[in-house]
Amino acid sequence: MYSVSVRDHFMIAHSFAGEIFGPAQRLHGATFVVDLEFRRGDLDAHGIVVDIGRAGEVLRATLSDLNYRNLDDVGEFTGRNTTTEFLARVIFDRITAAIGRGDLGEAARGVESVRVTLHESHVASAAYEAAVR
Amino acid sequence: MYSVSVRDHFMIAHSFAGEIFGPAQRLHGATFVVDLEFRRGDLDAHGIVVDIGRAGEVLRATLSDLNYRNLDDVGEFTGRNTTTEFLARVIFDRITAAIGRGDLGEAARGVESVRVTLHESHVASAAYEAAVR
Amino acid sequence: MYSVSVRDHFMIAHSFAGEIFGPAQRLHGATFVVDLEFRRGDLDAHGIVVDIGRAGEVLRATLSDLNYRNLDDVGEFTGRNTTTEFLARVIFDRITAAIGRGDLGEAARGVESVRVTLHESHVASAAYEAAVR
Amino acid sequence: MYSVSVRDHFMIAHSFAGEIFGPAQRLHGATFVVDLEFRRGDLDAHGIVVDIGRAGEVLRATLSDLNYRNLDDVGEFTGRNTTTEFLARVIFDRITAAIGRGDLGEAARGVESVRVTLHESHVASAAYEAAVR
Amino acid sequence: MYSVSVRDHFMIAHSFAGEIFGPAQRLHGATFVVDLEFRRGDLDAHGIVVDIGRAGEVLRATLSDLNYRNLDDVGEFTGRNTTTEFLARVIFDRITAAIGRGDLGEAARGVESVRVTLHESHVASAAYEAAVR
Amino acid sequence: MYSVSVRDHFMIAHSFAGEIFGPAQRLHGATFVVDLEFRRGDLDAHGIVVDIGRAGEVLRATLSDLNYRNLDDVGEFTGRNTTTEFLARVIFDRITAAIGRGDLGEAARGVESVRVTLHESHVASAAYEAAVR
Repeated sequence: MYSVSVRDHFMIAHSFAGEIFGPAQRLHGATFVVDLEFRRGDLDAHGIVVDIGRAGEVLRATLSDLNYRNLDDVGEFTGRNTTTEFLARVIFDRITAAIGRGDLGEAARGVESVRVTLHESHVASAAYEAAVR
Repeated sequence: MYSVSVRDHFMIAHSFAGEIFGPAQRLHGATFVVDLEFRRGDLDAHGIVVDIGRAGEVLRATLSDLNYRNLDDVGEFTGRNTTTEFLARVIFDRITAAIGRGDLGEAARGVESVRVTLHESHVASAAYEAAVR
Repeated sequence: MYSVSVRDHFMIAHSFAGEIFGPAQRLHGATFVVDLEFRRGDLDAHGIVVDIGRAGEVLRATLSDLNYRNLDDVGEFTGRNTTTEFLARVIFDRITAAIGRGDLGEAARGVESVRVTLHESHVASAAYEAAVR
Repeated sequence: MYSVSVRDHFMIAHSFAGEIFGPAQRLHGATFVVDLEFRRGDLDAHGIVVDIGRAGEVLRATLSDLNYRNLDDVGEFTGRNTTTEFLARVIFDRITAAIGRGDLGEAARGVESVRVTLHESHVASAAYEAAVR
Repeated sequence: MYSVSVRDHFMIAHSFAGEIFGPAQRLHGATFVVDLEFRRGDLDAHGIVVDIGRAGEVLRATLSDLNYRNLDDVGEFTGRNTTTEFLARVIFDRITAAIGRGDLGEAARGVESVRVTLHESHVASAAYEAAVR
Repeated sequence: MYSVSVRDHFMIAHSFAGEIFGPAQRLHGATFVVDLEFRRGDLDAHGIVVDIGRAGEVLRATLSDLNYRNLDDVGEFTGRNTTTEFLARVIFDRITAAIGRGDLGEAARGVESVRVTLHESHVASAAYEAAVR
């Protein structure tokens, strides 16, 4: 199995509902450093997993939609806790949709699975990975 | 598959038996930076893999039992080489036992597998991962 | 010159005033990973710059006062942009006040200068350093 | 599953063929920081996955064969794009051949799979992993 | 003293003249991860050292002029060894010229000194720092 | 001011005397990742601060003398706490002595100051820096 990873970040405000979250129930924020990994069994004719330039651009575009926002005000997330693991899934869904639309180019159509890791600090991270349908 | 990771560290002395270990047969020591990853297929009702606060506390408690010790004097390890990979398994066993006792809370009962990675320097690490029984 | 550094982090929401900040004028947030460095010309009788255990505790206490907050709502910061460099200074002032009160113990009274570095992502950081009065 | 990882690096020049590579079609270069991971289900009698000293030596020897070269002039790579993912496979093949020859010692014969990760910058990496035949 | 740092990278081919360089006399290459630090005694009216957005853009523009090149073919460097320390100075000179031209905005005119650090691997780096004339 | 840094590590056992050290009074150990920085005002005729190859070799030789030891048994350290900051000074003294003996080559005679940083974990480090006499 081959894989290629690119990294970028975004910065948001949010709060969580539920006593389990303690002080994180208050409005606070986070920088999420995102590692986006694409996996496939074979390389394409160019010798690549994906066009890494396009992968970086699509990641940037995906994150810019979330960047510098208060996620508590984003309609799509109403009633959900925008935890690190939840956001990893949100980004996974958007990246795989971009692959489906061809935004990452032809090479990316060979991608079999994707892993999205969000580092919220030097001591904590979360990830979501799954096959690309 | 979702995952959440937390990081902490501990510092120990030990020595190894066997010519294969060369100068590491002498009493020496190590700082182990530990990444503890919890994995499960779905998030719970709060949108989390585990209560990350409790995960950090359980990791700290688990490591504090080993921290600032000479592992050559720990009865449980008599006759064993406390290599990095061996210690990854020791911590895995203690963490999964803690999950079983409920120390990580109800959310953690949904955890399907755990990975424990010990970084012994900027150039070497070892890990153990397995399903939670 | 000797120095000792300890690391911790905090997570906040805030917004900036001024067109120069572009989309960061919106309410957003950040994780700040903080490196706190103490410097002095000579070691004390124990062979240390500061009691590193106390240093970590004082850093944690200092950051917990800011952690999980919306800095736009903190009275002390009204009318100020809580930029990364500004916050480095805020933490510097609080740490040096703690040294003055003796919170870091006797050893810390020999500290001559302090540097506070805040990493806001994998690609950006800010710092403040100065002599301790 | 147990694993052990060692890290080293090499520095090369190369160029890529294909418009998809944009400015990387020009002769340029890269530092590749390599993480080499060995995996097996059980530890050997010494409590190890592999002899980590030998693993480091074999990795160094493998990389020194590529280090400080212009890969465009290496006959074996003629007509191939020496992308990061392609090079991860090249190193995988050489390491698994070394295991087969016994260069990593007897312990390494129990290795079931290997992962080779090449970091080309602070924001991009590629990997190849597979079972050892 | 306040400071702000931004990070980016570039990838080049080059070779060195002089037996002291050993195998690095051959054409090879490097990824340089660049940390660019701006320092000044006081913050401006916005509470910043420099406009961090502009700083990142100027760093990117400066590096893109070197990126994906064989430095042996760059006329300006003829007869010079483009060592990591030499390149740190080249980038310093270009960044301080950009400050002088006003490319980093008015805030940057208050910058008193600049440090440029180039990381060539996980184990080696070089830097140049000086006052801004 | 130019600088060049190289990184290596060593692993030791030790204990500390004094109640201030709490549980670190027990025999324990540490991995120290060492950054060794050389500084000078001008580059030499080769365009370098020091021969980075030799710098790495001298650092390795210096650390191998300490590596895999119980520092409590090293006569030279009798009656001293081998704290991270103390060890940074020990290594500084040995490196500057090596410069004086010519072990780093002629280029290194131009080195004006040296900084030795020891990282004892992902959250703590200590350093010693001074002019080279």
